[in-house]
Amino acid sequence: MPNAEILATGDEIRSGAVRDENTPWLAGQLELAGLAVTRHTCVGDDSEAISRVLDEIARRCDTAVITGGLGPTADDVTAEAAARAAGTQLELDETALANVQRALAGFGRSGAGRNRKQALLPRGAVCLENEIGTAPGFRMRLHGCLLFFLPGVPGEMKRMFEDRVLAALRDELGPGLASVCVKTVSTFGLYESEVAQRLDDLEEIFPGLRLGLRFVFPEIRVTLSARSETPEEAQALLARATRCARDRLGDCAFSEDGLSMPAVVGEMLRERGATLALAESCTGGLIAHMITGVSGSSDYFLLSAVTYANRLKTAMLGVSPETVRSFGAVSEETAREMAGGVRSAAGADYALSTSGIAGPSGGTESKPVGTVCLGLASPDGVRARRLCFPFTSRRANKRIFAVSALDMLRRELMQPLTREP
Amino acid sequence: MPNAEILATGDEIRSGAVRDENTPWLAGQLELAGLAVTRHTCVGDDSEAISRVLDEIARRCDTAVITGGLGPTADDVTAEAAARAAGTQLELDETALANVQRALAGFGRSGAGRNRKQALLPRGAVCLENEIGTAPGFRMRLHGCLLFFLPGVPGEMKRMFEDRVLAALRDELGPGLASVCVKTVSTFGLYESEVAQRLDDLEEIFPGLRLGLRFVFPEIRVTLSARSETPEEAQALLARATRCARDRLGDCAFSEDGLSMPAVVGEMLRERGATLALAESCTGGLIAHMITGVSGSSDYFLLSAVTYANRLKTAMLGVSPETVRSFGAVSEETAREMAGGVRSAAGADYALSTSGIAGPSGGTESKPVGTVCLGLASPDGVRARRLCFPFTSRRANKRIFAVSALDMLRRELMQPLTREP
Repeated sequence: MPNAEILATGDEIRSGAVRDENTPWLAGQLELAGLAVTRHTCVGDDSEAISRVLDEIARRCDTAVITGGLGPTADDVTAEAAARAAGTQLELDETALANVQRALAGFGRSGAGRNRKQALLPRGAVCLENEIGTAPGFRMRLHGCLLFFLPGVPGEMKRMFEDRVLAALRDELGPGLASVCVKTVSTFGLYESEVAQRLDDLEEIFPGLRLGLRFVFPEIRVTLSARSETPEEAQALLARATRCARDRLGDCAFSEDGLSMPAVVGEMLRERGATLALAESCTGGLIAHMITGVSGSSDYFLLSAVTYANRLKTAMLGVSPETVRSFGAVSEETAREMAGGVRSAAGADYALSTSGIAGPSGGTESKPVGTVCLGLASPDGVRARRLCFPFTSRRANKRIFAVSALDMLRRELMQPLTREP
Repeated sequence: MPNAEILATGDEIRSGAVRDENTPWLAGQLELAGLAVTRHTCVGDDSEAISRVLDEIARRCDTAVITGGLGPTADDVTAEAAARAAGTQLELDETALANVQRALAGFGRSGAGRNRKQALLPRGAVCLENEIGTAPGFRMRLHGCLLFFLPGVPGEMKRMFEDRVLAALRDELGPGLASVCVKTVSTFGLYESEVAQRLDDLEEIFPGLRLGLRFVFPEIRVTLSARSETPEEAQALLARATRCARDRLGDCAFSEDGLSMPAVVGEMLRERGATLALAESCTGGLIAHMITGVSGSSDYFLLSAVTYANRLKTAMLGVSPETVRSFGAVSEETAREMAGGVRSAAGADYALSTSGIAGPSGGTESKPVGTVCLGLASPDGVRARRLCFPFTSRRANKRIFAVSALDMLRRELMQPLTREP
């Protein structure tokens, strides 16, 4: 199997000021492309250090991806370092210059100005065009190793990797590459250890399968990678293994390929031609933010009333002050009235409500931080449930409260309707 | 200045399945301790690969920290690799054995069992005790370089670094270590190149100062690191440089030490004893989510009405259907009525509103994707402004719309009041 290395450049990453998001992403992508990633390295914006590492890398492996240092400032020295490693000079590349000018024109600027530096590539390098930024990348050979230089901005880097690097890797290293297919199954409502236990023997049952578990709070994502000699075999292996995994995970598995919980719920609402309203207290607008993050959500999403002040729960949603007084704002009774109230106010088919204690302060013995009451109003009536999570972080609680509310609606929408909405 | 490297080991990190949280943390800590971090490396659970890298690192630098591979399983090969690099053997270390047994006893197990492997250290290595886990670390010299081997579990690694490594570094490298102090200034409303230009000559004016610019969309964060011989000198240098940087950045600099825009605005509201309501359309609850992410926000935040459906802008906020018909939902006129309407409905002192086109679809020639109208109602009256951003991503637009609205309020709250709220 051909091997690959990754080099990240930049003083912010070297000094720990900025987390390097590019290297883990690239490592995953290169492994998926059938390469063995053998080493990652990071050095600062130092031409001599970069050129030394490039020389080492090129002597060790078949291909490498380098990120960062392609900008217009004096700090950006990667092209110069590459030329130095190859014992050559920088030259103006016409394709790169056109790329820089096109990108600047998009920002309403003419000419290249100080960005002209970005069009200087090592002699013999081939420009990799950047569709969404001013920094062109390039590829070149060093000691027989195929080096790809990409910008450090993650969006630009990913786009260039997908558009330009993958195809070149297949052309150059194709015959040695295995076929790998991948599927992600997202779950909610199980501990990581429970997910692991349910899928314990899958790698044994399906030789060539590799499982990865990732905790993307509050979801557990299962990655299934099927490796085989041909794409068809890998695809067939993946399909069988995914079916088996979904059987084991039951209705805790809510989506494939990273589809988010609000996108899943939104799709279910759209299929029913139904609409949704929210009354949020402790989630503070997060559920609305998640739902409206899905393009097209205005087809089913009508309203969220984020009523942080109790008097506005009464004024906007018709929650009885008596209910709040007797049971508290954080109670199943209040959550029921909030859900019913916002459903009527918005004229929606479904409504969710949240009232709870996100923390870090505000907990009591009977209602500790992490307590939430969720209300659900539907054509079938109104109900509420109370949950208690062990987290003390406000951020974590808001998120798990929001996803729990959406999951409550998802499970409701999985049932057949007893009345027309 | 002595230099340091970092080596992370582990197949999960090498393959991109798990993000390496240890290296950026260690890089920051080592730099703060006065060392120059010159390189990071990552390799998998491969004894030969690890021993080769250890040999390279030890020939290059004064000290290095290595994480991972100290567990009890067959995958855990770091100690063996270290012994191999030093041309020596593994030996049972009594301190390490006692550490393992003590940790297991804490879990209710007696003896060491398969964890006995964790007490095998390279001959001549000194055990670094692990107070909170079963994996002891160790330190040893190779080619004169001081190597520290720490467990991969972040909590155990950090504890061991703070308890054992820092003191050893000071003992061994102390006279060469500088003092470093760091400050972050967050800005909004300038391009990265404008920030860079305004601070262009700061490193020249203040020798010992180093500037870093980081784009944390949609903010630009400026990191100032002041390095000097004593902590007092470093602190004084940092204070002078920070004052100068803030002068140059003017009111685009909104906070220090990473304080978020909603936290800054919240503090200003609290100081005035004023309250806030929101009417969000295109931001879909994001402003409310940002504000309620700050603990204590219920003191000043009353309500967000996320009115996605136009008819609810009328029903909940009193926006005239005539206004929406004549000027459109995305207009300064509608934004004004939304802000005024929610201010009245909530009985708030200040209100913000947003109406715009987050995309990726829904744009027109006169109102392209990225257009937003922001309304601000205050005791002084109601006003609105229209902005247009060049982004096509829904996520990016929602975020920059939300931060722009908060910044509009921040600038309002910087003015003296003309009337009592």
